[in-house]
Amino acid sequence: MDLIEEIKKRSSHVDKGIEEYLPIDKPYELYKAARYLPDAGGKRLRPATVILAAEAVGSDLETVLPAAVAVELVHNFTLVHDDIMDRDDIRRGMPAVHVKWGEAGAILAGDTLYSKAFEILTHAPAEAPERNLKCIDILSKACRDICEGQWMDVEFENRDDVTKEEYLEMIEKKTGVLYAASMQIGAILGGAPEEVSDAFYECGRLIGIAFQIYDDVIDMTTPEEVLGKVRGSDLMEGKKTLIAIHALNKGVELKIFGKGEATTEEINEAVHQLEEAGSIDYVRDLALDYIARGKELLNVVEDSESKTILKAIADYMITRSY
Amino acid sequence: MDLIEEIKKRSSHVDKGIEEYLPIDKPYELYKAARYLPDAGGKRLRPATVILAAEAVGSDLETVLPAAVAVELVHNFTLVHDDIMDRDDIRRGMPAVHVKWGEAGAILAGDTLYSKAFEILTHAPAEAPERNLKCIDILSKACRDICEGQWMDVEFENRDDVTKEEYLEMIEKKTGVLYAASMQIGAILGGAPEEVSDAFYECGRLIGIAFQIYDDVIDMTTPEEVLGKVRGSDLMEGKKTLIAIHALNKGVELKIFGKGEATTEEINEAVHQLEEAGSIDYVRDLALDYIARGKELLNVVEDSESKTILKAIADYMITRSY
Repeated sequence: MDLIEEIKKRSSHVDKGIEEYLPIDKPYELYKAARYLPDAGGKRLRPATVILAAEAVGSDLETVLPAAVAVELVHNFTLVHDDIMDRDDIRRGMPAVHVKWGEAGAILAGDTLYSKAFEILTHAPAEAPERNLKCIDILSKACRDICEGQWMDVEFENRDDVTKEEYLEMIEKKTGVLYAASMQIGAILGGAPEEVSDAFYECGRLIGIAFQIYDDVIDMTTPEEVLGKVRGSDLMEGKKTLIAIHALNKGVELKIFGKGEATTEEINEAVHQLEEAGSIDYVRDLALDYIARGKELLNVVEDSESKTILKAIADYMITRSY
Repeated sequence: MDLIEEIKKRSSHVDKGIEEYLPIDKPYELYKAARYLPDAGGKRLRPATVILAAEAVGSDLETVLPAAVAVELVHNFTLVHDDIMDRDDIRRGMPAVHVKWGEAGAILAGDTLYSKAFEILTHAPAEAPERNLKCIDILSKACRDICEGQWMDVEFENRDDVTKEEYLEMIEKKTGVLYAASMQIGAILGGAPEEVSDAFYECGRLIGIAFQIYDDVIDMTTPEEVLGKVRGSDLMEGKKTLIAIHALNKGVELKIFGKGEATTEEINEAVHQLEEAGSIDYVRDLALDYIARGKELLNVVEDSESKTILKAIADYMITRSY
């Protein structure tokens, strides 16, 4: 089974779905701004899990395609607004939306993506309207969690006493809940009973958290030529990642933490200190544990090709090198 | 019948509903920022029309209170984001949300209000889930229209050739559709048949447009001590209001248009020119016509106290002096 191929098979339908459900209409520039990021690609992991979850409970792509598109639009909405807040001017190798259309344009493009996501979800074909309503409830709660997570993230920048629990809550909200919602929505629209859709939610939550904390490991262990940015940049920026929190709690003194720049030698020394303190292994093991637990939860449904692909996606979260 | 008293009777429930459905939870500052504008008051005309529409079709406040709160939160969401875009630092006599919590805080506070509105609407008690789903569809489309309207408004600032039709489309989207959605949602959740809820939508749309264009008249005709700002400020700012469009089309040359400042004498002269050209009467008559058509549509339901109050709200739109 070729994971990338299996994801592409589904994401090509998502691409067409975006064109169909979010046409570039008047005022054209608004819709061009809204479509800019979704059209730029991305891995489409979230809509893929919506579709695979539906397949794994015996349903099909057609039933959940609108919902898959809705989830992808919500993801892109958060990127557009986050980039304004974080002053990130580059996204997917291109100028961010607020760079191209100004801040007002980016706020409106994000709001438009948001509205469209809910509009599409009301039209998702479900056998019972209760299912759509339940999915809208899940997605609106996920959006609220994402706002809370982003708020915490911004707040953490000015705090030195962020705990492991607070960090995990923040990334659960910023990243975990949308994977959780994706899998649960796929299961619900696919007609699964509550025990299955609840297990899928929890599976998505764990996978999403693992995805995010493994990012911290990648930042430490991946060479610059693969990563596309300097190794250890999180440390130099003084980011309170889980690795940093673990190390600081162990009393490790990192000379380059928050210093903004460092020589390769200093970075190597810091990474060595983190290895010695067991901070990198600690976070890697935690990610592995989350993935193992997430995969285990998938056994609530019978074996199928889609279930195998979902497990492969889970593994991909912690084997990717960038 | 005391209109203000009748609105207050209903808005006190909306106030309690906001506290109940949008509690100030962790992270507290995010929810304080989200609650700041809704708690600062406002006329609550939109939620009042949701409730009155439900009453007028034989339903009651309890059935539609969550939906009324949802509409009020959407209205406040648009104010929070619009104030960032328009750089308006004062709202309801207080510092705007972005002044108190920064721009990132205001973007997130707005997004939170948005998510919450949809979440609340999924829980609105309706006898049939199809009704909730229909209302979510209406509200999400209204939100998208508001984005389109705000985009057009921003774009018009840099154009000299805005037509009457474009201006009316812009204010229909910025203001009309949320009144339209309010009345339609009240009717649908109240169990009205489609012909009634469609007529209520159209009534709300006309009332909302009249509300907005009558603002232009107020800017010209209300003395400074009542208006709270200099008379004719729209002219000095060079705003393409319907009065300005009408006058410019008639070849009226307004010396102070877009000049930023003017003496009282110059303003009086400009207002006199607009009166001579019939521009103020033209817009006042248009607003009166919209209101008359809106009220007529209410006759799709039998006479009732709620219907009388709705008609009084319609009249209020064009009799208020500020």
